[in-house]
Amino acid sequence: MTRPEPTPDARTGPSTRGPADLVITGCTALVHDEREEVGFVENATIVVRGGRIETVTAGPVIGGTVTAGTVDLTATGLAAAEHIDARGQVALPGLVNCHTHSPMVTLRGIAEDLPIEEWFNEFVWPIESNLQERDIELGARLACAEMIRGGVTCFADHYFSMDTVAAVTTESGLRANLGQAFFSSHGAEGRERSLDFALRHRDTADGRITTSLAPHAPYTVDDADLAATARLAREHGLLVHIHAAENRDQTEASLARHGRTPIEILAGAGLLDTDLLIAHGTGIVERDLPVLARASGRVGVASAPRGYLKFAWPTTTPVRALRELGIPVGLATDGAASNNSLDVWESMALTALAQKFTEADPRRLTSRQALHHATLQSARAVGLGERIGSLAPGRRADIILVDLTGPHTQPVHDLAATLVHSARAGDVRTTIVDGRILMRDRELLTLDVPAVVREMNARMPALIDRSHGKRIQDYDT
Amino acid sequence: MTRPEPTPDARTGPSTRGPADLVITGCTALVHDEREEVGFVENATIVVRGGRIETVTAGPVIGGTVTAGTVDLTATGLAAAEHIDARGQVALPGLVNCHTHSPMVTLRGIAEDLPIEEWFNEFVWPIESNLQERDIELGARLACAEMIRGGVTCFADHYFSMDTVAAVTTESGLRANLGQAFFSSHGAEGRERSLDFALRHRDTADGRITTSLAPHAPYTVDDADLAATARLAREHGLLVHIHAAENRDQTEASLARHGRTPIEILAGAGLLDTDLLIAHGTGIVERDLPVLARASGRVGVASAPRGYLKFAWPTTTPVRALRELGIPVGLATDGAASNNSLDVWESMALTALAQKFTEADPRRLTSRQALHHATLQSARAVGLGERIGSLAPGRRADIILVDLTGPHTQPVHDLAATLVHSARAGDVRTTIVDGRILMRDRELLTLDVPAVVREMNARMPALIDRSHGKRIQDYDT
Repeated sequence: MTRPEPTPDARTGPSTRGPADLVITGCTALVHDEREEVGFVENATIVVRGGRIETVTAGPVIGGTVTAGTVDLTATGLAAAEHIDARGQVALPGLVNCHTHSPMVTLRGIAEDLPIEEWFNEFVWPIESNLQERDIELGARLACAEMIRGGVTCFADHYFSMDTVAAVTTESGLRANLGQAFFSSHGAEGRERSLDFALRHRDTADGRITTSLAPHAPYTVDDADLAATARLAREHGLLVHIHAAENRDQTEASLARHGRTPIEILAGAGLLDTDLLIAHGTGIVERDLPVLARASGRVGVASAPRGYLKFAWPTTTPVRALRELGIPVGLATDGAASNNSLDVWESMALTALAQKFTEADPRRLTSRQALHHATLQSARAVGLGERIGSLAPGRRADIILVDLTGPHTQPVHDLAATLVHSARAGDVRTTIVDGRILMRDRELLTLDVPAVVREMNARMPALIDRSHGKRIQDYDT
Repeated sequence: MTRPEPTPDARTGPSTRGPADLVITGCTALVHDEREEVGFVENATIVVRGGRIETVTAGPVIGGTVTAGTVDLTATGLAAAEHIDARGQVALPGLVNCHTHSPMVTLRGIAEDLPIEEWFNEFVWPIESNLQERDIELGARLACAEMIRGGVTCFADHYFSMDTVAAVTTESGLRANLGQAFFSSHGAEGRERSLDFALRHRDTADGRITTSLAPHAPYTVDDADLAATARLAREHGLLVHIHAAENRDQTEASLARHGRTPIEILAGAGLLDTDLLIAHGTGIVERDLPVLARASGRVGVASAPRGYLKFAWPTTTPVRALRELGIPVGLATDGAASNNSLDVWESMALTALAQKFTEADPRRLTSRQALHHATLQSARAVGLGERIGSLAPGRRADIILVDLTGPHTQPVHDLAATLVHSARAGDVRTTIVDGRILMRDRELLTLDVPAVVREMNARMPALIDRSHGKRIQDYDT
């Protein structure tokens, strides 16, 4: 987020410097025009060099030919260490999971059909008091595998034992913004550990890891800690990632106790004058809008609509109101213990559907709007708006290839609609981060799922034991 | 629906009569107990003979062994023409798409982000006036391919040119209940054609095709035609499949024009005293409930929740109220022109989520309730409650095998939740109807998708031409 990017080259054709690292030919590429409208380039060639997108060109490669049966790359005047023939596929910027707790995949399905209070107090927080480093490691590994398989190339993680998550992120090849969560009940030490983590890991893994300060929420972190967090974020140029106004009940409880909404508490602590990622925000109310409008920091919101439906919350993230303020709304899954998956593709479709329903207007979100949320807005929400989120020269080469030859994605009358409403996470064939292929033709290249699952299941009885009666925190908004 | 079934055998172990047609070993099987509660049998063996399920047994096969690496069927004392080693997979009754217009996959994505009036009047009904038999045939073929790939083994179709759909259904190997749609604007001939179709095709395709009378809706079919339909249904023992109370606007328009709700109109025509499949019903209101309670026919409702969100309708199917009346609510997709897919798996998840949200109660639908809708209730809704919907001896062998080894479906704490909220249509590996394998390891065995798509795309310009200004009907509730 804070590292300046070199100005992208304004090349219009492939470079003539030595071989490229990767060339993708024959795909349809999702691009953004000057007004950020989503469009598509047919029969595109994407050239990747040094982990970046060098060019995205339309039509046959300059000076080259694409023959009927196979792409003859030598005839194109291009040389590349790696070539992907992507005919029948669409290239998109990799999806960004803007708010998750990756190791919680371990608890997928353990606390079902419950209100959030029981979900936290009876299941999640008691079980989390058993978590060992090895559980975190296995969970993070499984989560990274799931995300790579679903076309996610970057995730914003907010959890505990984040040194371990950082190590797994590095090994997986994914990009991430990582934050070590803390409660005020941890004392000053929690905040210090969060800062220490953020400073040690920022811009590691060849720049793929960025970091944030990660106070849990205004109802578990007091005003003094929030204000201290804001000061540290400004001092060190760090993003702050926090749950706030998660639901309407939290906003009402905050008003009853403090006379202020969660958003007003963030503003009072100075957090709206830092770069801030707010998770959920379904409890953002009318009076919060002028407060958000006055923010001087880059504020983004992460929306994970499946969980709001599942917990039967009465509202979803107020996307229209936030967009009118220019606030990016990124797509997210939250943890798999509530969402049951890390499927950002589903979040994209559900965001469109939930907005139509709650705004009582079938005309919005359109599929192109949904794709804008999934690309540039998600990149901005996690503080990477200059690096990723678009297939444009100079951006990092985080690219996914989506197969549209299945019967459920044919015929194609409106490619944006096909992507949002017909395609599924399982249609992603290839996932690329920084120009490196992490999944090719559905095969994971950096992680071993069966080994992870075997060990995870062996450790499960100890992990899910709740007989000790402990919990890491109480949910009482 | 109307053909009596032989009493299922009460065998408790595999038969000793000659070789079985198909044996599936090593799977976890979804079963229903006497109270119809959903449960699971571990390491199950399913024996299929003559298109029916003969036995579902738990644990190692009687007299046999399952060795570590491979299943040695010869050592089990069982012989079978076909054997599937399904370890790591879950066997479910095939999904039932209780209301669709299969050939409309051709129009997937053509009319996006619109209110239903414009969707019908500006796009769907003008384009449908161009439909040729060949378009119907290609559409039905693509739809069958999509459904087989998504684990659908039976669909209730309500459309035009149903002779063609019947031929494609036969060729595909799927089971279906088919109805030739009519409007009163077609005159008596429409109703007669619907009856003629129903009588000619009932119990064809080795019994896989059943039929219904298919008046379009109370706002397009007048009272006299509805009453005549009810008489014909009773006379011939046919199901009636109709759109009714699709949304709240239709109910209000009906009250304003006729002083009666759509459900009251159905009752007045005698249709609630026939076996009746009502599509959608999101406009069913409080005063309809006693009317439905007095129904003497077997009434079912098909719910396709994705489209209700997409059209921004204010309500979804009132599942709780209908269940309290004992009315089965089956899962459906509607046509792909509104739903964008024929993904019943997604309908299952969205039904659970939409019910939690609209009832403001996270405790319902539970995943087990959702699976009950997907199995027995869906089978009953389409008039096949005695033949399919359960992996029980004597039922037709409509079985799907779902792979849960993917990272997004691990670990498994609650198998029902894994199936409803984590698994996806793309996790179905094998689809079986009447004991015949229609897809094996994701490979379609009865349909050629690339050939269909090629020809469909060649015909598309003529099909989607709206310059003629015609439409088959007007949408004006």
